[in-house]
Amino acid sequence: MKTDELAREIAADIGTDKVTTAPEDLVCYAYDCSIYTSKPDIVVRAESKLDIARVLKIANNKKVPVIARGAATSNCGAVIPTTGGIILDMLGMDKIIEIDEDNFIVVCEPGVVTAVLQAEVEKRGLFYPPDPQGLNMSTIGGNVATGAGGPRAVKYGTTRDYVLSLETIIADGSILRTGGKFVKDVSGYNLTQLLVGSEGTLGVFTEIGVKLLPLPEARKTVLCTFASLDDASIAVTEILRSKVIPSMLELLDKTSVQLIQNYMDAGYPTDAEAILLIEVDGSKADVESQVVTVKNVCMSCRAGEIRIAGTRAEEESIWAGRKSGFAALSAYRPVVIPEDATVPRSRLPEMIRQVQAIAKKYDMLLPTFGHAGDGNAHPHICINPGTAELEKAKKIKDEIYREALKLGGTITGEHGVGMVKRHLAKLQHGDKALELMAGIKKAFDPNNILNPGKAF
Amino acid sequence: MKTDELAREIAADIGTDKVTTAPEDLVCYAYDCSIYTSKPDIVVRAESKLDIARVLKIANNKKVPVIARGAATSNCGAVIPTTGGIILDMLGMDKIIEIDEDNFIVVCEPGVVTAVLQAEVEKRGLFYPPDPQGLNMSTIGGNVATGAGGPRAVKYGTTRDYVLSLETIIADGSILRTGGKFVKDVSGYNLTQLLVGSEGTLGVFTEIGVKLLPLPEARKTVLCTFASLDDASIAVTEILRSKVIPSMLELLDKTSVQLIQNYMDAGYPTDAEAILLIEVDGSKADVESQVVTVKNVCMSCRAGEIRIAGTRAEEESIWAGRKSGFAALSAYRPVVIPEDATVPRSRLPEMIRQVQAIAKKYDMLLPTFGHAGDGNAHPHICINPGTAELEKAKKIKDEIYREALKLGGTITGEHGVGMVKRHLAKLQHGDKALELMAGIKKAFDPNNILNPGKAF
Ligand SMILES: Cc1cc2nc3c(=O)[nH]c(=O)nc-3n(C[C@H](O)[C@H](O)[C@H](O)COP(=O)(O)OP(=O)(O)OC[C@H]3O[C@@H](n4cnc5c(N)ncnc54)[C@H](O)[C@@H]3O)c2cc1C
Ligand SMILES: Cc1cc2nc3c(=O)[nH]c(=O)nc-3n(C[C@H](O)[C@H](O)[C@H](O)COP(=O)(O)OP(=O)(O)OC[C@H]3O[C@@H](n4cnc5c(N)ncnc54)[C@H](O)[C@@H]3O)c2cc1C
Repeated sequence: MKTDELAREIAADIGTDKVTTAPEDLVCYAYDCSIYTSKPDIVVRAESKLDIARVLKIANNKKVPVIARGAATSNCGAVIPTTGGIILDMLGMDKIIEIDEDNFIVVCEPGVVTAVLQAEVEKRGLFYPPDPQGLNMSTIGGNVATGAGGPRAVKYGTTRDYVLSLETIIADGSILRTGGKFVKDVSGYNLTQLLVGSEGTLGVFTEIGVKLLPLPEARKTVLCTFASLDDASIAVTEILRSKVIPSMLELLDKTSVQLIQNYMDAGYPTDAEAILLIEVDGSKADVESQVVTVKNVCMSCRAGEIRIAGTRAEEESIWAGRKSGFAALSAYRPVVIPEDATVPRSRLPEMIRQVQAIAKKYDMLLPTFGHAGDGNAHPHICINPGTAELEKAKKIKDEIYREALKLGGTITGEHGVGMVKRHLAKLQHGDKALELMAGIKKAFDPNNILNPGKAF
Repeated sequence: MKTDELAREIAADIGTDKVTTAPEDLVCYAYDCSIYTSKPDIVVRAESKLDIARVLKIANNKKVPVIARGAATSNCGAVIPTTGGIILDMLGMDKIIEIDEDNFIVVCEPGVVTAVLQAEVEKRGLFYPPDPQGLNMSTIGGNVATGAGGPRAVKYGTTRDYVLSLETIIADGSILRTGGKFVKDVSGYNLTQLLVGSEGTLGVFTEIGVKLLPLPEARKTVLCTFASLDDASIAVTEILRSKVIPSMLELLDKTSVQLIQNYMDAGYPTDAEAILLIEVDGSKADVESQVVTVKNVCMSCRAGEIRIAGTRAEEESIWAGRKSGFAALSAYRPVVIPEDATVPRSRLPEMIRQVQAIAKKYDMLLPTFGHAGDGNAHPHICINPGTAELEKAKKIKDEIYREALKLGGTITGEHGVGMVKRHLAKLQHGDKALELMAGIKKAFDPNNILNPGKAF
């Protein structure tokens, strides 16, 4: 069947204004935040679950790929329509349906921007902790589909830990409702948890229920420098052993710190081998006592400078550096590819040292920062496009993840597999696991129309 | 094939001493903590993953059911060999393989008793929070297979939230390794989370990695009485809104309290409509301030008595009543069937009132206690065996869960589906979800040999 015919059929079913095949539109949907592009054949701007059910029914009959698309902030090509097909733009479905203040639950449409959801619940003294760093753009639907995490995962977990219910349209257009307004459920297989992180390959989310916590009363930030990665890493473990679980526990290596300081003055000392940024939260009294503990632990782990933010402004200036990390690297090289190796926490220094060795081997900088409390390192490959650096980048990526796997880690702690890490997923999981994943995929999507060629 | 022949084949493969078909042995494996029984044909006492792989390979060829069995504390008949077959006794595989104090992770065999694991890690200042109340008997393998929860779930979540890695032997005898020593992972579908709660129907766990937390420094218990269920429920929400997340937040209704006081003197006031037992934990200073907050909140919610345990002995005596709830009910009627309705937290009073109405209708007592912070009510059906009460019990069970579903709840918050709630699972999930679950089951276990007729 021709694309035009298909577009007309869909338009006749859901409305002409929601469907486009205009070349200038298709170009706009060929990208995400990876380095890859590929154009879809048709773009549908969904406005309701009915739209989605209808599109899927038609596409399933015709065996045409359908890719749900949030804000397209994926770093791993998860929304690239590699084999064409239909892009389902979810940004129009951006209503917060209910903030249930008695049960600490939000029910929303998938296109709600993460930061918007957070702000809305915080107004009510509630707290949605997951904080992937693209949160000013990314959608809750995309976060659920990728199982997104962020700095707060060390204390609060990732998106996965907050999803209570999903309404999902599966490939044949039927509606699946899983979970509900309850925090515990062991009735049958946990389809909700299976759908989290499925990268749009098992179904399209149309309604999402997430749980909330009370918003902590206070927080405080500490910056510590270390002359060695090992000392920083030992400090991380010792902080946790001291019974403090920081709300954020981030590490920046020397290269990152230097590039950030080149870009802006975050006040980071540039001679340290590693900097830890530590935030604690809780009641006012508890925060004060946690800061004292953190300080003492870091001192006993041979920290250099220990800086405690006394004001909100000082706190913001400390975090501004970390937050502009990506921008700082982009100023150094126009294309920045964030990698996402996650290893047992105690092996993070080895991981970073391996990254440094790879950097040396390929004569590139690989600035690394990340979530030290989770063993999640983000080495960044920074390249000039259209140069030989792109080929180097591919080799570097593979070497990084092979090292991560050797250290007992995973090829992705939070960004996902997408189109760029499928060969590595095979290495990590082995044939049997992939066979089981294929069996699950088949049960949900026998014609393989949902985001084909992604996730595993 | 005859049972004797099969037993001989297995014995030849893994060793005669591990295999039995003696009638007195089969009787011992016909039970769990539900009211049902059915004898297996063969019992295998597994000592290694190799034993299990071999048994599964043989059973899969012959299409004979295999049921992994932990401590058989299931309340829902999850380990009853309803169609005979092989019971795999996992209690021999009870080694703690590693306590990784740097990464806060324990790796163990599935037969380790929950309380043993907890005690071992607490010796090292670490904390494994999941606390299903059968923990002195139940195994980690059983806990993972049922996704077990307990009173601490309100703050710390359930077993599901702690499982980081699984080694699982699937039906064809092959070994599946999922997850690892990392706290975050979005590589491919999350098979680990799918296996949690699968009630032995997708595979047999042979090694389990769980994450730990630092052991809280201090804790304190508060008992509050309320003249109405609604006030107690409002207090629950208000405590959370006051930014205190108790480590336990339990509710007992009047009938339970009276039966407990008949059985032992826990010092519970018997005239209150509801009692809340609240434990907070954290640093010493934080615990003190949380107790003050809890007290103020309960006062503002019209609590009657508010009792703060001043000593460890007082604390233990308060909890002794709750802990001997099951024993107290057993003293009232020899057969006690704990139900497990879980609803949105704010709807718990309605749920309990519905239970009370059902009790009246059938002229039975249905003492209810449970995890108020999770909306998880355990109404208990107490019967004299061999009387008409058994038939009543079945009707009562169904009515309770139909009410739970009407209130937007689930038929099981923590006990599982087993053999006794399959018809209710159909009601809860609908045909499409069950079809998908069947598809998943087929991918893992095409011959349907693993604990057939359970879970969904
Ligand atoms: C600057 C920057 C910082 C980042 N920091 C982090 C970070 O700290 N942590 C982290 O985890 N990630 C991070 N990311 C990656 C990215 O933001 C996350 O993966 C995010 O969850 C993607 O959300 P999105 O709405 O952009 O989804 P998209 O990129 O549009 O889609 C991602 C995947 O989700 C699927 N999907 C989207 N909507 C739906 C739906 N409704 N139903 C079914 N499937 C759907 C898509 O098919 C695709 O497979 C970062 C990205 C950038 C650019
Ligand atoms: C007094 C009492 C109090 C209880 N309180 C609670 C409570 O507070 N919270 C709660 O959640 N439950 C509770 N339960 C129920 C029960 O204790 C839990 O379901 C527990 O997790 C079962 O563990 P087990 O080792 O006894 O498993 P079993 O009862 O032997 O088996 C349960 C299920 O797990 C499977 N299984 C066991 N081992 C493995 C393995 N190695 N691999 C794969 N599958 C396996 C079995 O096939 C079966 O489906 C209680 C039970 C009693 C008797």
